[in-house]
Parts: sequence; C-alpha cells; structure tokens
Amino acid sequence: MIKAEIISTGSEILRGQIIDTNANFIAKKLFELGIDLEHISAVSDDPEYLLSTLKLALSRSDLIITTGGLGPTEDDITYITIAKALNLKLIKYPAAEEHLRKILSKTRGEINSSNLKQAYLPEGAKVIINPYGTAPAMLLEKDDKIIYSLPGVPWEMKKLVEENLIPYLKEKFPPAVIRKSKILKVTGLGEASVNELIRDYLNKQTNLSFGIYANPEDIQVQIIAQAPNEKEAEELLKQSADRLTEILGNYLYGSDEQTLEGVIGDLLKSKGLKIAVAESCTGGMLGEIITRVPGSSEYFQGGIISYSSLIKENLLNIPPEIIKEYGEVSEPVARLMAEKVRVRCYSDIGIGITGIAGPGGATAQKKVGLVYLSLADGKDTMVQKHQLFGDRHLIRLRASRRALNMLRLKLQQCP
Amino acid sequence: MIKAEIISTGSEILRGQIIDTNANFIAKKLFELGIDLEHISAVSDDPEYLLSTLKLALSRSDLIITTGGLGPTEDDITYITIAKALNLKLIKYPAAEEHLRKILSKTRGEINSSNLKQAYLPEGAKVIINPYGTAPAMLLEKDDKIIYSLPGVPWEMKKLVEENLIPYLKEKFPPAVIRKSKILKVTGLGEASVNELIRDYLNKQTNLSFGIYANPEDIQVQIIAQAPNEKEAEELLKQSADRLTEILGNYLYGSDEQTLEGVIGDLLKSKGLKIAVAESCTGGMLGEIITRVPGSSEYFQGGIISYSSLIKENLLNIPPEIIKEYGEVSEPVARLMAEKVRVRCYSDIGIGITGIAGPGGATAQKKVGLVYLSLADGKDTMVQKHQLFGDRHLIRLRASRRALNMLRLKLQQCP
Repeated sequence: MIKAEIISTGSEILRGQIIDTNANFIAKKLFELGIDLEHISAVSDDPEYLLSTLKLALSRSDLIITTGGLGPTEDDITYITIAKALNLKLIKYPAAEEHLRKILSKTRGEINSSNLKQAYLPEGAKVIINPYGTAPAMLLEKDDKIIYSLPGVPWEMKKLVEENLIPYLKEKFPPAVIRKSKILKVTGLGEASVNELIRDYLNKQTNLSFGIYANPEDIQVQIIAQAPNEKEAEELLKQSADRLTEILGNYLYGSDEQTLEGVIGDLLKSKGLKIAVAESCTGGMLGEIITRVPGSSEYFQGGIISYSSLIKENLLNIPPEIIKEYGEVSEPVARLMAEKVRVRCYSDIGIGITGIAGPGGATAQKKVGLVYLSLADGKDTMVQKHQLFGDRHLIRLRASRRALNMLRLKLQQCP
Repeated sequence: MIKAEIISTGSEILRGQIIDTNANFIAKKLFELGIDLEHISAVSDDPEYLLSTLKLALSRSDLIITTGGLGPTEDDITYITIAKALNLKLIKYPAAEEHLRKILSKTRGEINSSNLKQAYLPEGAKVIINPYGTAPAMLLEKDDKIIYSLPGVPWEMKKLVEENLIPYLKEKFPPAVIRKSKILKVTGLGEASVNELIRDYLNKQTNLSFGIYANPEDIQVQIIAQAPNEKEAEELLKQSADRLTEILGNYLYGSDEQTLEGVIGDLLKSKGLKIAVAESCTGGMLGEIITRVPGSSEYFQGGIISYSSLIKENLLNIPPEIIKEYGEVSEPVARLMAEKVRVRCYSDIGIGITGIAGPGGATAQKKVGLVYLSLADGKDTMVQKHQLFGDRHLIRLRASRRALNMLRLKLQQCP
C-alpha cells in the first residue's frame, strides 16, 4: 500500500491569514481512492524549509502532492525547490510557454520574464496544462517516487484534481480496498445522546468504522465500509445504514447531501401544501433557509418579519392587549403569529418564532435563549417552548432549525 | 528568535473529514506575538507517525504546540507519545484527577479506568486544568525545548490559548518586533480593481506588508506594520490606513471587526431612522443579516417576505396589472416593493429586492442573476439593476450585500 503526503506551501497559511482548505479537499479524495494519507504539512515560502520538507517527504512517502508556489513571483519556489531536492535541472517546456502566451495575450497582451518563469519545470516532468490559470501543474515520476504539483488557487486546484490527478491515481493504483461512506443526519438530539443510542451497535461492528460529528445544525453519523470490491462495500454500507436508520428513528432526517429544508420541501410538494412564516428574533433566517431550495416557490408563500410590536399588531393583527399582557416573547403571541401568518399569507401551514436572541432583552422571568416555536395548520396550533444555548447567532440558528424540525415531524405524521 | 511549530493530531484530518481550523487559529495568534511559525503538520492517531513527527519537531523547532489526542479513548496518544519522545515517564497528576472526578460527577456520576487515563501526563509537565472539558492541557519545558499541548475540541482549545498560552508566551518571549495589523473592508469593487487602485501605493511601502483577500462578502486589505515598539508600529499602521482610506474612498465601509450591517446600524441610530425590507428572491436573508446586530430592534421594524405574487399583491398592495405587465422581477415592481413596505412597516426607509436566484426561473430576456434593488425614503425611490454571478447562494448573498451597500451610501450622503 502506498503512502501519500500533502505539502501545502504559502506563508499566508503559516501566518494564519488563510485556512488550508486545499489539503482537506485532496485528503477527502485520497481517502475515497483507498490511498493512505499519512502526513499533511504546511510550510512557508522559504527555500530552505521547503527543501527539507520535500526531502523528508521523499524519504518517508511514495506519493507527494504539493499545492501552491507555482506563480510568477519571487515567492513561488515550488518547482525550483523540487528540482533541487531531486538533483534535476529546470528546463523550459514549450507547451507551458505556449499556454502562458495564449492566456496572457487575452488578459494583458504581453509576456515578461517573470511570467515566463512559469514555463520552467523540473526536467523529466510531465507538464499538465492548467486551462483555468497560468500556472501549469506537473507530474514527476522518479525512482519509485511520485510528485504531483498543483496550483494553490482553490478552484484551479480542484478542477485539476478532478480532471487529472484522480484519473491518474485510479489507473496507477487500482484500489486494493474499496471504501464507501455514507452520512446519516440527525436532529433533535445531542451528541452524547446519539452516542448512547448507537454505541452498542457500533461496538459490535468489525468491517465498518464510524465517526460522529457535532455541528451547530445537526449531528452527523458517518459510516465507512471497507471491502475488496464495490458490491460488497455497498452491501455492508446499506446494511449498516438500514440498521442505524431503525435505531435513530424519527431523529434521522436525511443522509449525505440531503438538507433539512430539502426534506421538508419534498414533503410539502408531495402533499401539495403551502407554508408561510412569521419571524421575530430570527429576523428572516427561517425564510432564508427554506428558500435555499431551488423551486421552493412551489410551496413557500412568504411571510412577515415581525421584528417590532408594531408589525405584530398591524400586519399580523395580534391584539395589542395580548402583547401587553403576556409580552412579545410568550406562548399566546407565538400561537397567534403562526395562526395569523397562515391566513394572511394564504397558506396551509403557518410557522411562528418569537424569542430572546440576546445579548440584551432578558428579564428576571425570561432569559436569553427563551424561544417559542409555533405551528398552525388551521385545525390545531402547537407551541413549543425552548431554552436554547449559545451566542446570538447560535440561538437564532437553533431556533430556526428546531422550527424546521417541528414542521418535518408534523408533515411526516400526517397522511 | 524562536522557531515555532504546530502539530495537529487526528485521523479525521488526514481522511479529510474535518478541516484543521485549530492550526489556523493558533498561527494567527503566534503571528500577532511576533513568533515565527515555520511548520504546521497534521498526523494521524498512529503512535509511530506521531513519534517521528515529534522527534523531527524537537530537532528543528523551539516551541511545539500540539492539538488533539488528549481524550480518554485508545486513539488518544499525545501524552504517552510525548513522554516516549523525551524519555519521560507518564505519571498521575492529582490535580488532573480531581478535576476529572469533579467534571464526571456532574455528568455521568462515576469514573472508569478509561477516564482516569486523562489524569496521566509526562513527568515534569505543568498541568493546565481545562475548565471547559475533561482533557487537561500541558506545558512541558525540557532542554531548551517547549511543548504545549492543547485539546482538539476547537472551543476548548481557543479558550485555553487565550487564557493560558498567550499570557505564557508574552511573558516568556517579550516580542523583539511588534507586529500590528489592520484590515480594511471594501465593497462594491472587485479584487482586480482594488489591486489596481492601491498598487502604486503598496509598491512604494517598505516597512509595511499587505495582503488582499477576496471573500464573497467583500474584499479585505490587510496592512501589517512591523516596528521595534508598539508606538512606532501603531503610527506606521495609522499612516498607512489613513492613506488607503483616502484612496479607497467610498468603497471602504469599515475595518477589522466592523461589519456592513453594523456600520449601517450605527448610521441609522445616529440619524434616528427606521427601516423595513421587502424581500423576494432573498427570502429573508436581508432581514437576517440586518438583525445579526444586537439591538437592531432600535431601527429595524421588520418586513415582508413576498416570495409569491399573492403576497406582493395582498400584503404589499402592488397592483396585479403591474406585475402582469412587467413581471415580478422588474424595475416597477422593485420600486413599489420599497415604497409600499416603507409605509406598511411604519419606516423612514424601505428596501426592496426582487430577482432570479436560479437555477430555474430564467427567460430569454431575464437571465439568472438579474436582480433589482430599490430604496425608498418617502421623497425619492432609487432602483438599481444588477446582473449578478455565482450559484443560487452567491446571487442571494450578493444581492443582499449590494442592497445593504446601497443603504450605506444613501445614509452617508444625507446629512
């Protein structure tokens, strides 16, 4: 089994100015190809450090993928340093020069010596023309070692990985094991409780591995199946997903690329129902999330952002005396928000959110994080009271997500 | 000058399941302290690889900061491996054990041998009790080398960095050079144009360095001043910021932690004005952004999410014949959205957004990305037409940001 290593170059990574997301993207792809990635290093644009990092990598790894340092400036030292590490000359590649001239003629009209530097690569390299920018990528095979160099610009790098690196690796190293993974998405339950619920099952598995990741939006359970061939891996994965789906029950809302708002959209479309929202503390967030789904106009009518009591009274027609008696953040106001917005916005279902997102606005009785969520369908109105934790953003996000989940459970319940 | 190095442990980083944001956070802090960070490595939870990475780090760096691998499970091998790398014993620290028992008694009530593992650290370590979790951090000084180990849970790590690592480093290594940095935030201009505008100035500077970063929200220009003392660094930074502020003019909306919505909030408060929004394609996003600011209820009344024409007609009172004649995405509809929502929501200023966020909904005349933004103040109504690029999310985000910027410019104009 080959050992892979990623080297990201760029002083801006070491200064904390950018996060190295390139390494993460490549790591994910290598994992899917069944290639073991053992090291990721980030190193500044310093010839000495890069050289020692490259030499170390050549001593311990079979496949070295570099990103960055292919530009036209003084800082861009990847190719010259690779050449030094392997005792190779830098030579001018006509294909790279031609591409460079073509690209630059479109944008700046002329080529100078600093641009021309990008046409020089280590001797023996296979130049990979980069249609998305000026910096050519490179594949260099020497003494059982492989170096694959990619530009640092994320979208150029991604394109070249998809179009060149992955096909190359698939052919060069037909995977010995196939890894398939699936993510199950859970909401309405904390990480510890998810853990508790599935721990016994997880501990009994041998050909599978698992990961549990907590996000502000949900808990994700990743299943990784490993098998000698695609079919067996798929089967293992399916069995495990089926069993976990059973265990997680209603808490499971989707898998892989599915989103909570997408799942709800599908339910609403299949039932032919329309919804509307009345939002106070979330200020539009719930509507924003619902309308992330292309085609959501089919079921989302719109809503009222009732951030002030004036809007609650005049657009939602909530009697001022109710607001006065119970307060804007209260069960009766939440109830009326859902009921009124349902009618005012010509919908089958109305959803209301009112709460204290903080940091201000709390009273002795009502703490920051107190949120009422409501759902009215014309027959019944349900209201949930939550005491949410986190900062202003998290409270608003959690309130919106819980409102969506309330809607999902409601829609899954009714025939 | 000391050389620092970060080692992040965790197989999930190498599999591409999580992005190593911890290293970025620490890198930023070291940069501010004037400490040179030369290497960042990520390594899997494999004793052999971690050991060789640690040995290498000890051979080339003075300060080694590790994150992760401090938990109670089999995979958590940081302390045992550090002990091995330095030929030290692992010993039980009573303070760590006591803290562990205290935390676990609150949550699970009992302690088992796997928990107890977390009380064992290398001999000679200074235990740093972690009030935010079970895993104790550690400072180990030996033979002119310093190892500082932090937990991998981001928010625990961040707290411990702020409260322990930074004060320790400040005292141990009083900075030889002071680095001060400031970020200027620009909107309404692309990266290339910002570059063009400030290039001549940047090229003339010697004691300053610069970075330009393009985000979906804005362009950020970072100024880094380096000087022997705080005062000189501050002065350099101020001079440069003043000059760039002059050059960037109206495109500059704020600096450092300022946000566009925060700047607008301050303007509205100082002028005593109230606003409301009518949103179609953004579905609530503009309201959500405006209400990110604590205390925004002082100037944000609320609004209407007019995602369907029914809402435009009945809640915004836009005549159906206008929608029929010009379409929902049109100059006249945008104009009326701002004007009507201003009145309906008892505001001084109304803002409207209508557009085609895609991927569906385009016609031969109206492409995806066509957006009308409007602003009505009771005297005039302005409407801007934009053809925005990007996917659905980016189009919505850019439409919201441009609407905010239109509001900012309007507010800065009027006395």
